[in-house]
Amino acid sequence: MKYAIIGMGAVGGYYGSRLAQHGHDVHFLLRSDYETVLHYGLFMDSYMGSYQLSNLNVYNDVHLMPACDVVFVCLKTTANTSLPSLLAPLLKSDTVVILVQNGIGVEADVQKMLPQVHLAAGVAFINCAKSGAGRIIHRGFGHITLCNYNCADATILHRVAADFESSLVPAQVSDYGDTRWRKNILNMATNGVTVLLDARCDELISAPSSCQLVRDLMLEGVRAAQACGVTTIHDDYVDQLIESTGRTVFATSMKYDFDHHQSMEIEYMYTRPIAMAESHGCSLPRLRMLEQQLRFLERLRESK
Amino acid sequence: MKYAIIGMGAVGGYYGSRLAQHGHDVHFLLRSDYETVLHYGLFMDSYMGSYQLSNLNVYNDVHLMPACDVVFVCLKTTANTSLPSLLAPLLKSDTVVILVQNGIGVEADVQKMLPQVHLAAGVAFINCAKSGAGRIIHRGFGHITLCNYNCADATILHRVAADFESSLVPAQVSDYGDTRWRKNILNMATNGVTVLLDARCDELISAPSSCQLVRDLMLEGVRAAQACGVTTIHDDYVDQLIESTGRTVFATSMKYDFDHHQSMEIEYMYTRPIAMAESHGCSLPRLRMLEQQLRFLERLRESK
Repeated sequence: MKYAIIGMGAVGGYYGSRLAQHGHDVHFLLRSDYETVLHYGLFMDSYMGSYQLSNLNVYNDVHLMPACDVVFVCLKTTANTSLPSLLAPLLKSDTVVILVQNGIGVEADVQKMLPQVHLAAGVAFINCAKSGAGRIIHRGFGHITLCNYNCADATILHRVAADFESSLVPAQVSDYGDTRWRKNILNMATNGVTVLLDARCDELISAPSSCQLVRDLMLEGVRAAQACGVTTIHDDYVDQLIESTGRTVFATSMKYDFDHHQSMEIEYMYTRPIAMAESHGCSLPRLRMLEQQLRFLERLRESK
Repeated sequence: MKYAIIGMGAVGGYYGSRLAQHGHDVHFLLRSDYETVLHYGLFMDSYMGSYQLSNLNVYNDVHLMPACDVVFVCLKTTANTSLPSLLAPLLKSDTVVILVQNGIGVEADVQKMLPQVHLAAGVAFINCAKSGAGRIIHRGFGHITLCNYNCADATILHRVAADFESSLVPAQVSDYGDTRWRKNILNMATNGVTVLLDARCDELISAPSSCQLVRDLMLEGVRAAQACGVTTIHDDYVDQLIESTGRTVFATSMKYDFDHHQSMEIEYMYTRPIAMAESHGCSLPRLRMLEQQLRFLERLRESK
């Protein structure tokens, strides 16, 4: 299978390079790091063992890329308006586009822009970050869950999972709503709070007041998922999340974005799922308040 | 009548100096500014016209002060554990102690420490701040409402109000619960948010998301007051508050404390009234979340 990776941020760089490292046919679209990776390759500082790849197929123009069987979109959701023009040259009639992005409602919006495209979700569980041009630091985890959204033939996802599994990446295929919501309940309860309180996840859990706050936010997230028709997530999931969050000695992707003066993914992580749940009569006062606080910070940032 | 002012912060300095300026017998207990005010007097940079008072009765030891008819406590509530020793030398059998402090539940706690004392509340509506040793800037408002708490004879409050009225300070006597809660509903909805979002009140109101947030917090405050038995505050009060908050081109006392590395009055402004309302079955998710966020910031600050 021929793979395209749109965006060589930390996530796209990690999953794409693992496939390339293990002999798969992978083509990367880059912007800012193109020259660096073209000349010096990609350096992955991984807790599983570091590696450097020098002969990656890298492009800075999507029109030079081949049509692919599977396209991984590894951009931030705030860049999704560019997807129609970015994807067009890569698509065959049966190409599957896998959105490796955060949030709830992303696939629905992309489907509106590209009604003919076969979409799937890629839910990544990984702690990684860019550490420089062509350099990525991979600090923990690294598995990915693939979920069919509207593919005519979803069996391809199992072949993608198998390619990952043979490339040191634990991968599985699972239910779309369950998987997207489980990840987003964690994201909603931690991302915004780490921004507002300038704190790591484990710091939030170690203080009684903020631990209760995170727990209350998670419980609202479970309510939201249930209101949106997900029947497989219950309150006991919160205990699991609190336990793992207490061991998370770093912050969140939104905190990274905020600290690096990049736009925050408020829309799909908060606004969209909150509005969906509210439209089903579910009140989410804490999550709504957090969204309002983040929108204010965003507005203040943009006005500077 | 003989007045004592405990604490020459901005509030004690303003109200006490207005009485002294107009010929009343006022005795001030100072700490850090004692030497400055003793030698150079107090300078009040007031929007109503600035003034300097050189012959104030100032003390740095409460045992040198005379017993008084009225004692204004103008300390922050975080210093209230010192009240028994501070007040003892000033009290006669009929002395009225007026707590010019923020929050809900303050009088009840002071009554526990000093069961024999006649207590009243002084609810100040003023924008003022210390601008240096012996220097206060008075930017707006300046009225005060006096409320009987447990005085054997509350008529003295009307004489105090008359003394204020003859000293350029608009003053009235009003209901305890109604007045304390009206002020605290405003404080709860603005103080913590200005700290968390590093913003002025008018900035919060000018952004749609944070204006809705402040409104939601005020509505919860009204619910809390009603749950605690205050029957005179209704939702229309929130519209008044939003309008006045939108014209408030400064932050809040809690923001001032936070910025100056002083302890925040979380206990009586948030924790106590929230717990009181919750004990009556009233759920306040937004106010509770704000309190949790502030407690985290306080803990982080104290650990540094």
